[in-house]
Order: sequence, then C-alpha cells, then structure tokens
Amino acid sequence: MALLLDNQFKDLPPDKAIDTKLFLEAVSHIPLFFDCLGSNVFSVIKSDINGNITKIRAVYMKDPAKYVTLQDIVEAEREAHAAEWPKVGATLALMWLKRGLRFIQILLQSLADGERDENNPNLIRVNITRAYEQALKRYHGWIVQKIFHVALHAAPYKSNFLKALSKGEEVKEEDCLANVRQFLVNYTATVDAIYEMYTNLKAELDYTV
Amino acid sequence: MALLLDNQFKDLPPDKAIDTKLFLEAVSHIPLFFDCLGSNVFSVIKSDINGNITKIRAVYMKDPAKYVTLQDIVEAEREAHAAEWPKVGATLALMWLKRGLRFIQILLQSLADGERDENNPNLIRVNITRAYEQALKRYHGWIVQKIFHVALHAAPYKSNFLKALSKGEEVKEEDCLANVRQFLVNYTATVDAIYEMYTNLKAELDYTV
Ligand SMILES: CCCCCCCCCCCCC/C=C/[C@@H](O)[C@H](CO[C@@H]1O[C@H](CO)[C@H](O)[C@H](OS(=O)(=O)O)[C@H]1O)NC(=O)CCCCCCCCCCC
Ligand SMILES: CCCCCCCCCCCCC/C=C/[C@@H](O)[C@H](CO[C@@H]1O[C@H](CO)[C@H](O)[C@H](OS(=O)(=O)O)[C@H]1O)NC(=O)CCCCCCCCCCC
Repeated sequence: MALLLDNQFKDLPPDKAIDTKLFLEAVSHIPLFFDCLGSNVFSVIKSDINGNITKIRAVYMKDPAKYVTLQDIVEAEREAHAAEWPKVGATLALMWLKRGLRFIQILLQSLADGERDENNPNLIRVNITRAYEQALKRYHGWIVQKIFHVALHAAPYKSNFLKALSKGEEVKEEDCLANVRQFLVNYTATVDAIYEMYTNLKAELDYTV
Repeated sequence: MALLLDNQFKDLPPDKAIDTKLFLEAVSHIPLFFDCLGSNVFSVIKSDINGNITKIRAVYMKDPAKYVTLQDIVEAEREAHAAEWPKVGATLALMWLKRGLRFIQILLQSLADGERDENNPNLIRVNITRAYEQALKRYHGWIVQKIFHVALHAAPYKSNFLKALSKGEEVKEEDCLANVRQFLVNYTATVDAIYEMYTNLKAELDYTV
C-alpha cells in the first residue's frame, strides 16, 4: 500500500476548504493507481484523469496567490466565463476528476468492507461494478456502458491488485486492507468536500458521454 | 473536404525519405479527423494519436538539424537505446502512429472505391471494419477487439461523415470523394514509405495491447 500511503491526502480544515497546491500534489499520484489494474486497456482512463489534473494545474499556475483553494478557481471561472460555465476550464476538469476519484474511493471501500463474490472470491468485478454504478454509470451513454462491461474482463485478480497497491511487495491481505482504510479517511473527506462544493455552487452537470 | 485538402501531404522525393518537419506539420491535422466521427467515444483515439505526434515532435525539437528525416530519428534511437529499441521513444510512437494513419487511409480508400453495405448504404461500418482488420486488429488482444465492435455502433452515417470531412459544408458525395482520392495520393505514398522503412530497419514489432 506504500503507493497510496506514501501520498496521503491532508486533513481538511474545519471549513473544508481544499488547498489547491496540496490537493494537486496528492492527486498527482492517483493516475498510478490505474497501473495497479495491470492491463493497458486502462491507460486510456489514466490519460483522461491525467488530462483533468493537468488542466487544473495550468489554471492554478497562472496565479497561485489568487487560487489558494479549489473553490477560488471554480468561483473565478464562474465570473470569467458566465456563458459556458460550468462546462469550461478547471471547473469541468474537476467535475470529471471528482467522479474518477469517487470511483476509486468506492472500489477501495468495498474491498475494505470485505464485499465479495462468494463464488469467485479472488475477483474484484463485483467491487468495480459497485464503484462504477455509484460514481460513473449515469454519466455514460449506452455505448460507453457497454465498453465498461467488456473492459471489466481486463480487471486483475484481487491478490494481484492488492500486491500492486503494495508496490509489488507480498503483504497479508488484512495488512493491505488496514492501510487502505487508513488512506480512505482523508481521501473520502476530500472527495466529499468537492462534491459538496459542486452542489453548493450549482456547478454540477449531468450530461452523458 | 477542406479539412483534409487544406493540409495535403507533400510529394515524396525519389529516395522516399520523409522530411520530419513537413511530416509533423501535415500530420498535426490528423487528430481532427476523429472529430469527424462525431462521437466523443473517439476522443480516446484522438489523444492516443496526439500523444504519438507529441512524442515524435519532442525528439525532433531536441536537434532539428540532426533529425532532418524520420529515418534519421529511428536510426539515431537504434544507436542510443540498443537494448530497448525498437520499443522506445519516437520509434515506438511512429510505429503506432503509422497504424492509425493506415487505418484512416484504408477507410477513406474503401469509401472512395464505393465499397458499401447494400442493405445499409448510409452506414460506414463495413468500411471501418475493413480498415480495422487490415491496419490494427492483429495488434489488439481480444478485449480491445471486442471494444472495437462495441465502439463501431458510435460510427456516424456516411452522409454526416462526408459532410464533416467537408468542414460542415453540404457538398455532393461525388465531389467529396473526388477530393478524398486527391488527398490519398501523397498520403498513401507517405504511409507506405514509413511501413517500408520499418521493414527495412527491422523496426516493426507485433505485440498486442
Ligand atoms: C480501436 C478500438 C477502440 C475503439 C474506441 C474505444 C473507445 C473507448 C472509450 C471508452 C471511454 C473511456 C473513458 C473516458 C471517458 C471520458 O469520455 C469521460 C469524460 O471525459 C471528460 O469529458 C469532458 C468533456 O465532456 C472533458 O473533456 C474532460 O476533460 S477536461 O480535463 O478537458 O475537462 C474529460 O475528462 N471521462 C470519464 O468518464 C472519467 C472516467 C474515470 C475513471 C473510470 C474508471 C473506470 C474503470 C473501469 C474498470 C473496468
Ligand atoms: C469507464 C468505462 C471505460 C473502461 C475502459 C475503456 C478502455 C478502452 C480502451 C480501448 C483502446 C483505445 C485505443 C487505444 C489503443 C492503444 O492502447 C494502442 C497502443 O498504444 C500505444 O501503446 C504504446 C505502448 O505499447 C505506446 O504507449 C504508444 O504511445 S507512445 O507515443 O508513447 O509511444 C501508444 O500509442 N493504440 C492503438 O491501437 C492505435 C489506435 C489508432 C486508431 C484506431 C482507430 C479505430 C477507430 C475505431 C472506430 C470504431
């Protein structure tokens, strides 16, 4: 679990404002998560998420003093691009990024909770499907949904996935899952806070791709 | 057809050496081709091809005087990375890029030749499938092949595709196809020359993704 635990998300302050710089630093390790899935079918998703992060970082870099929190960025874009907003810039990139982050959160949570297919205890399809249904499915048209079901066949065995999460070290399943639970604390709080912000700012869209 | 015709590939010299700068300029318009397919399912392919071009350009920019032709790049990399070559750098990027270019070439050629599904004359699935089978299928494992078959359902109608190729102008099918034939002359010669170079330099690989 070194991979994730090396890069813990930070505690949120009481007002749940997310520091842009710390967020970008923590989230920059997330694309590596998709390498843990072990098939290059997922490199496509990795680049999509990488693209989101690059876009947010580019906006931040234009004026770090102005964009201290993620909310600063979203509000500034609402001012600057009233006509297209929220389907624009870092607001759009973060809208999609948070869905990918939620997907990962639910997948890890489901594993940590011991949810499993009793007939195939070493498969993680049931966990991936739960994560997909809760985080992404409603934003995908039928063709992408069907592609998801095909791509599911490229998912790794649970044992290989946990090993990859642990940077290739052989660790006991329970030790790895304990680390996952630890990681999920701040990670989940951060993802929740982004969702809350999108609701509060009415920045959420529900078009399908 | 303005989209393609505005950006004709150049005549090759008698020795079929491809000028890197002119190639990069001509090929930079190719990713737009995937927008003509009209569905964002294909944006994934667009970024893959964009990535190939970016990688080749980055190598070229390091020393334009040294890398006058594409062959200069591939040969320099063979020297510099003997162990990994050809699965490395711009050699790998061009290996995949040429397959995407071949896919487009065969698709357009098949349309220009009037190949059609008599029962569905306004679909281009038969043309796309031919292009896929000749250019890409053997480099894809069964999961990606299955994803291809699902993605085929996102293909546009022929009329919409030809209109998009013509930059959204309503042109007669025959006029558009005449332009396609014109475009294909230098384009096909260029793609053929790259394939020939990979064969001659033994730079071709046949692993699947
Ligand atoms: C040759 C044969 C191949 C044929 C073609 C095949 C094509 C296959 C296409 C499959 C779709 C791949 C997933 C990517 C989907 C993306 O389309 C969506 C929306 O993507 C967003 O779109 C916005 C505009 O609407 C902006 O461009 C965003 O970009 S912006 O930064 O510019 O604003 C961008 O992220 N992202 C998503 O749905 C996010 C997905 C997140 C993670 C999902 C995890 C799933 C894991 C599954 C495990 C089984
Ligand atoms: C949330 C749900 C989604 C779940 C996940 C969905 C995942 C879907 C994945 C589908 C595959 C998309 C197509 C991309 C395939 C790519 O994997 C391959 C190889 O790609 C190459 O790989 C190399 C390493 O081996 C280097 O990285 C190259 O990069 S390098 O530059 O770094 O060297 C890179 O191009 N390119 C290809 O096969 C090329 C494809 C070209 C064009 C094809 C046109 C087809 C049109 C079809 C019309 C119907």
